[in-house]
Amino acid sequence: MLKLPGLIDPHVHVREPGATHKEDWDTVTQAALAGGITTLLAMPNTQPPIFDEATLNISLDAAKAKARCDYGQYLGAGPANADIVASLAPKAAGLKMYLDSTFGELRLDDMTLWTPHFQQFPKSAPMVMHSESRTMAAAILFSVIYDHPIHIAHVSLKEEILLIKAAKEKGIKVTCEVCPHHLFLTKDSPLPQGEGLGVRVNGRTEVRPRLATQADVDALWNNLAVIDCFATDHAPHTLAEKDSDSPPPGFPGLQTMLPLLLTAASEGRLSVDDIVQRLYTNPKKIFHLPDQPETWVEVDENAVYEIKASDGFSRCGWTPFEGWQVKGRVTKVVLRGKTAFENGKILAESGYGRNVRD
Amino acid sequence: MLKLPGLIDPHVHVREPGATHKEDWDTVTQAALAGGITTLLAMPNTQPPIFDEATLNISLDAAKAKARCDYGQYLGAGPANADIVASLAPKAAGLKMYLDSTFGELRLDDMTLWTPHFQQFPKSAPMVMHSESRTMAAAILFSVIYDHPIHIAHVSLKEEILLIKAAKEKGIKVTCEVCPHHLFLTKDSPLPQGEGLGVRVNGRTEVRPRLATQADVDALWNNLAVIDCFATDHAPHTLAEKDSDSPPPGFPGLQTMLPLLLTAASEGRLSVDDIVQRLYTNPKKIFHLPDQPETWVEVDENAVYEIKASDGFSRCGWTPFEGWQVKGRVTKVVLRGKTAFENGKILAESGYGRNVRD
Repeated sequence: MLKLPGLIDPHVHVREPGATHKEDWDTVTQAALAGGITTLLAMPNTQPPIFDEATLNISLDAAKAKARCDYGQYLGAGPANADIVASLAPKAAGLKMYLDSTFGELRLDDMTLWTPHFQQFPKSAPMVMHSESRTMAAAILFSVIYDHPIHIAHVSLKEEILLIKAAKEKGIKVTCEVCPHHLFLTKDSPLPQGEGLGVRVNGRTEVRPRLATQADVDALWNNLAVIDCFATDHAPHTLAEKDSDSPPPGFPGLQTMLPLLLTAASEGRLSVDDIVQRLYTNPKKIFHLPDQPETWVEVDENAVYEIKASDGFSRCGWTPFEGWQVKGRVTKVVLRGKTAFENGKILAESGYGRNVRD
Repeated sequence: MLKLPGLIDPHVHVREPGATHKEDWDTVTQAALAGGITTLLAMPNTQPPIFDEATLNISLDAAKAKARCDYGQYLGAGPANADIVASLAPKAAGLKMYLDSTFGELRLDDMTLWTPHFQQFPKSAPMVMHSESRTMAAAILFSVIYDHPIHIAHVSLKEEILLIKAAKEKGIKVTCEVCPHHLFLTKDSPLPQGEGLGVRVNGRTEVRPRLATQADVDALWNNLAVIDCFATDHAPHTLAEKDSDSPPPGFPGLQTMLPLLLTAASEGRLSVDDIVQRLYTNPKKIFHLPDQPETWVEVDENAVYEIKASDGFSRCGWTPFEGWQVKGRVTKVVLRGKTAFENGKILAESGYGRNVRD
């Protein structure tokens, strides 16, 4: 039996408010616990997006009532809310800036709209960037000019990880996360669930940032030291949506991250300590998260089994890793002295979770 | 009579080798002299592009034979020529990196291809970026990380000039240039030569970076102190090409830059000293250009007249400023003790021009 600390996922799409047919604060925290995750940080691009006090309260009220693990809620940076989100920073996981994929109230495509956020968001509060390729480089320049540390979400490309490496070597305060699907899948990976569908038009491959090349995946593995965190970017959509004519991008990931990483550890690709650093030590520090006393995760590191969506607690009902054989099973999760998950069953009740900022 | 130093244009497309029906080293240097410019720096995106010793010699041999004013030739950064161009740096005006608009051998769209150039090109040698919007920000980050000063070509947007301002205030070694067409035209400007053609599809409006909004133009004028140089980005194409179904982007500009700026000076929008700083003092320093002894430009600052392409020496035969009334005419240019232009006539001979790096 392997005993790990309660893990932290800094990048989760809860889908509540606005799309609870995909997921809500109840199901997402069940999936988290089953994946060994005792703290998740929720992204703000819901419907409505979380971008002021009223919308923040909508999410936090739902979380307080339903969440079974601990949580934080990001604020979304919009074109005209820099002073508002700065004032709400103590209540939030941090500020999320969508610099590439843009959505309604969180649209920020002109760089002049980035400036007030970098100037006003508290220096000690986390700022997370959806910023791909050269947009990521632009975000890092803003970090330099306005002297605010930033965290780069879901790094997927060789050019990104190498530039972050160079920036860190220069002393620039940038951290980053990588998602399991960018470590274990490429744009050419066969999809176990894609039978009967053309793989290249299969909506189940759609994710942002896109699945990349083998060279990109190799660069991530070869620069493990540059990766501060692993994060799921858990982004559930129903199978009906994924298999529709306009499939939304996103994969679920909460229950598959740890087994995939433990399997890689069993193959010698990284150590269990590497995993703990990136799923506990580093995110705890980067996102200023409180201690969770009497909290741990028990893993049967020798359990070999197949990933099955039917074992999942997410409402989305599928996984891109269906049928993958993995080694390492979460058997028990204890959160603040109470057993929250054991032998495949969620034991924590709705509302047991705490806001990390309370 | 106003007496100015011999002016410097750091951004000129000579079109030789490869497209001498548009322009060549003879006609481009005639247009330069008629515009008060005694030194021009030639861009490398010719056919073939200037990206190694053989292609550099093609251009320099033609320039030596034909040029009537002084000149330098940029090298183009390619995906695999970082060591070659670094070794050729002493013979070149500098290194041009095309980070947005890409062409064949000079294609650099992956940021990993930028790194060896930033690492290897000599620290004291000029590096010029075609980099728009957030790509410009990425280029400035590379400048920070690899500690190499860079010069941003043809700044056209509010977000660009404001970011350069912020970077300079932070102490980052970045300089920039702005083209007259981005100071005097917007995307909504009527085109005097566009009669009978739909203005929005008129090839004569096509230029890169594109003509921008009034807010962008206002931001450039309001941040004149941030602008180090004016530059024409003289990019001649024939009228037949511009009015074709696939019009190539680019405007001529060598003969119109100084009259347009002097007209703005006569209106109090900037001073003659502002012009001299940006067309002589600053580019001389940024591009490490030698003195031109006994060299000056005489201007009749009270001469009012209409810009006419028919007065032009460029082979392209048109100007986007046709019919504009301007105040300030170049009457005489003396280059290294010899009268090179007087009363509308070119007096310097082919081959009189010198390479600024000899």
